[in-house]
Amino acid sequence: MNANQENLKILRHSAAHLLAQAISELFPETLLTIGPATEEGFFYDMLPTTNFRDEDLPKIEARMLELANQDYPITHTEISKTEARKLYQNNPFKLELIDNIPGETVGLATQGNFYDLCRGGHVASTGLIKHFKLSGISGAYWRANRDGQALQRIHGTAFPTAQELTDYEEHQAELLKYDHRRLGKQLDLFSFHDEGPGFPFFHPKGKAVINALTAYLRKIQRTHNYQEISTPIVLNEELWHKSGHYQHYKDNMYFCKIDDASYAIKPMNCPGSALVFKTRPRSYRELPLKLAEYGLVHRHELSGVLHGLFRVRSFTQDDAHIYCMVDQVESEVLSIIENTNKVLNKFNFTNIEIALSTKPAKSMGSDELWAKATDALKNALRSAGANYKIQEGEGAFYGPKIEFKIKDSMGREWQCGTVQVDFFLAENFDVVYTTDNDTKTRPVVIHHVIYGSMERFFGILLEHFKGQLPFLIAPVQIKILTITDTQKPYAIDLKQQLEQVGIRVEIDQSSDPISGKIKTAQLDKIPWMIVIGNKEVENKTVTLRYQDGKQEFGISTPKLLADAEIHNK
Amino acid sequence: MNANQENLKILRHSAAHLLAQAISELFPETLLTIGPATEEGFFYDMLPTTNFRDEDLPKIEARMLELANQDYPITHTEISKTEARKLYQNNPFKLELIDNIPGETVGLATQGNFYDLCRGGHVASTGLIKHFKLSGISGAYWRANRDGQALQRIHGTAFPTAQELTDYEEHQAELLKYDHRRLGKQLDLFSFHDEGPGFPFFHPKGKAVINALTAYLRKIQRTHNYQEISTPIVLNEELWHKSGHYQHYKDNMYFCKIDDASYAIKPMNCPGSALVFKTRPRSYRELPLKLAEYGLVHRHELSGVLHGLFRVRSFTQDDAHIYCMVDQVESEVLSIIENTNKVLNKFNFTNIEIALSTKPAKSMGSDELWAKATDALKNALRSAGANYKIQEGEGAFYGPKIEFKIKDSMGREWQCGTVQVDFFLAENFDVVYTTDNDTKTRPVVIHHVIYGSMERFFGILLEHFKGQLPFLIAPVQIKILTITDTQKPYAIDLKQQLEQVGIRVEIDQSSDPISGKIKTAQLDKIPWMIVIGNKEVENKTVTLRYQDGKQEFGISTPKLLADAEIHNK
Repeated sequence: MNANQENLKILRHSAAHLLAQAISELFPETLLTIGPATEEGFFYDMLPTTNFRDEDLPKIEARMLELANQDYPITHTEISKTEARKLYQNNPFKLELIDNIPGETVGLATQGNFYDLCRGGHVASTGLIKHFKLSGISGAYWRANRDGQALQRIHGTAFPTAQELTDYEEHQAELLKYDHRRLGKQLDLFSFHDEGPGFPFFHPKGKAVINALTAYLRKIQRTHNYQEISTPIVLNEELWHKSGHYQHYKDNMYFCKIDDASYAIKPMNCPGSALVFKTRPRSYRELPLKLAEYGLVHRHELSGVLHGLFRVRSFTQDDAHIYCMVDQVESEVLSIIENTNKVLNKFNFTNIEIALSTKPAKSMGSDELWAKATDALKNALRSAGANYKIQEGEGAFYGPKIEFKIKDSMGREWQCGTVQVDFFLAENFDVVYTTDNDTKTRPVVIHHVIYGSMERFFGILLEHFKGQLPFLIAPVQIKILTITDTQKPYAIDLKQQLEQVGIRVEIDQSSDPISGKIKTAQLDKIPWMIVIGNKEVENKTVTLRYQDGKQEFGISTPKLLADAEIHNK
Repeated sequence: MNANQENLKILRHSAAHLLAQAISELFPETLLTIGPATEEGFFYDMLPTTNFRDEDLPKIEARMLELANQDYPITHTEISKTEARKLYQNNPFKLELIDNIPGETVGLATQGNFYDLCRGGHVASTGLIKHFKLSGISGAYWRANRDGQALQRIHGTAFPTAQELTDYEEHQAELLKYDHRRLGKQLDLFSFHDEGPGFPFFHPKGKAVINALTAYLRKIQRTHNYQEISTPIVLNEELWHKSGHYQHYKDNMYFCKIDDASYAIKPMNCPGSALVFKTRPRSYRELPLKLAEYGLVHRHELSGVLHGLFRVRSFTQDDAHIYCMVDQVESEVLSIIENTNKVLNKFNFTNIEIALSTKPAKSMGSDELWAKATDALKNALRSAGANYKIQEGEGAFYGPKIEFKIKDSMGREWQCGTVQVDFFLAENFDVVYTTDNDTKTRPVVIHHVIYGSMERFFGILLEHFKGQLPFLIAPVQIKILTITDTQKPYAIDLKQQLEQVGIRVEIDQSSDPISGKIKTAQLDKIPWMIVIGNKEVENKTVTLRYQDGKQEFGISTPKLLADAEIHNK
């Protein structure tokens, strides 16, 4: 963290204290817990007597500003735990915090009449905290434990200058405008329902996008000899003990009973893939064997953190498992890197950060195997001409990893693709192949995803393109707009021809004038509009209009079909 | 039932008694329960002291034959329940049966020293039961209640003549040869695992078939303005109370807990569809609104009845819900019938039986609504030129239904497609649309499937085509066989061209002579083989060879591509 970032953190943590001070004056019965700085600002978790509502925030902000204007000095003192326990005798949360602080004293920050437990790191006085904003209220749990006490979290942010706060607020407004949840509703793409929090429902237009993303990747996979499989959603709990998921991941898994045995809804696709690999003896001649699965996994998330398509409880991984020899890792990973770049570039992500995570302190597999695999990844990255950073010791215990991070059009970073080498899976599931010496040995497994979660990637694309999805994946790629009904037969014929080559096309059936039809298609964010009047019918051409208003006249049907096919690839 | 069928039933029920007689002599400690005739033969459920194994069957058969040869007369008498209870004092199953027979007497069939509880209907003596066969052992539950005592079931069949038994056995052998479970293994299509009994794993070639079946139907749906959606696998239990599934179907549903609330894994797709319909106000202008979903449902089946892809615990329905006005039912159903016929004919099912089930005694909705909807179905069937039978009073309580039954190449009947009119769903989920009078009213919902369960349909197709799947859905549609490696570059180029038009194609990479390559492709049941020698490379042609050995020479690449595309539609 640089000095600027450190100062910003101190400012924001101080703003959290200021928030707590305002709350303790306005709502004195509220039990305060903790109030740290975050990447984006700060929050304070508390237990009010009556739940706070959004309407309360302006009042709290106003009081914060008054307290800031009074410019109280903020002093830090160390007091004995006995003294601290007396101060907080009515606050079980603070008492628990005091118990957990090592040593015999605790820090206390004081500003005016208000004091708060604190390790230290504040601005000198409340007068230095002027440019802040409370941004919302959400639910939280004491110690982030969902069996613990439910609390309320007030979020906010603070900046050193008014200009920075304004910039931030403008950026937030832009993000809100293109929030994928908002676009999802506006464009009728998907919805969430109380009947299944965190489980997305895809409407026809949203499902069309998911299907287009799938079709696009399937084509790439086919060219690279991936073979698609599908494995069950529900599998015996025993299997998840064997895979290690039960021990490490059971709190995020859902279970059901079948014939008195316990079954899990799969949180990962790997065990299913291993079972398919093992259905018959495999020879070295079959390697690399690439099994792909568009696998729907279910993973528990706290209801408070669910967030549109970004954080869900079920999602589809564009999962693939490559079973190969150690010597094949390099060329396979090179091919994965190339495909990942190809896909990400296709969707206008050009600023791709790549990180290689290497052998951690605790690991399995020989040093030699690790070195060989890690070198293979480095060589592959080098061959691909990729810049990458090394995250020393941050690999999983079962193998090194490559991660791809993209930056969207609004400057946010997203981690999507991963390539995980795995020495453990084959061991765990007793997966072997027959070598050219007719002996049995274990393959290395490379797990990888490009989209990651298809649902999340869809959400990212929506925000990245501000709703204006590119031709390849747009729910409706072409809308045909006739100037009058006279051109309908021509429109219907054109629609059929476009559908024949796999284009998603609709005719505007309204009785609106052409300007109205264009406006509707604009609002629906249709990439191509085809405008047809009598002249077009006569000449057997179309006028092609894009979202930005640019038009091309006199395009013949064969040219239109050929262009559409090219853009659909 | 005609006289022949009645006699066959009597013979088979008598054979069950003969089986029981043999068992009671060979394994006297065995507790007998019930032994009815079935469609295919008979069975007897019993509780042995040690489980029977397949190896026991010949011994039992031999004793049955001895007892038949002794030609015991079979006599039927009515005895008092008191007397019967004394006879069966050591058999709790028979005692329970006696308790449940109305009246004060029960029937007893006696042959030699053996007697059995029986309502009557026997052949005159054991000598008339000569042509029988025991076919297997399976698990069963007392009173088919899975909480009840686990029993063993011995199956068999019997015929009046030796010829009929031989014919039956030959037919069984043929069925066994083309059993889809066997073909599934032989052609590497799918597998089942102890980790998930009843949950199919699709291997690359099996998944290719499922994907091809999906793609084919999607194309038809697109032409008919269906819109595809997808809804979650897991939904709150409350929803299933509302839909009525919980009350009637909960024993076949799987449940999991999320945040202390109970959730069900969906056994049906309808509630999800209704929630999507309701995400925004709908106008009469949008009707008929056709929401399709390739929905994966989970339904519990007893482990004893699981049977390859025919009886599974999870399957994908090619589900569709049409929301329409009553006046639209006729044209919609006509279109469904036409599409169903089209699909079934595509897969060489021509012998399609259609049944219309009408209003049952207990039903909902006005008589007028029922009459209107039933007439609409009749008119649609008539317009489609369909022969159909009426199943009077056999409709569901919420609307009339059409069922499609197909006969496969080995004479077996399968119920696949259904069209179910539903007056209840819209009521239940408070689904409305705005009429042209600007009032709100409920749509009629038409549920329908064509394949039914895609997994089961796949199994049926495998047996129907004896593994030789047609070009459209074959996992590998074309195999390219080069005479020597010299032709490889031409083969690779050809493969790419074929893949460009969506054909699933492989090159035989072995070093086998051409005769060996042809043999392999035959065994793999590849529909088209392309044979390439130097002559073909020179002339830029191919030789096309079919499964039956027929060959076409000198086919140009453009003609090959065009032909393949036509067969792929």
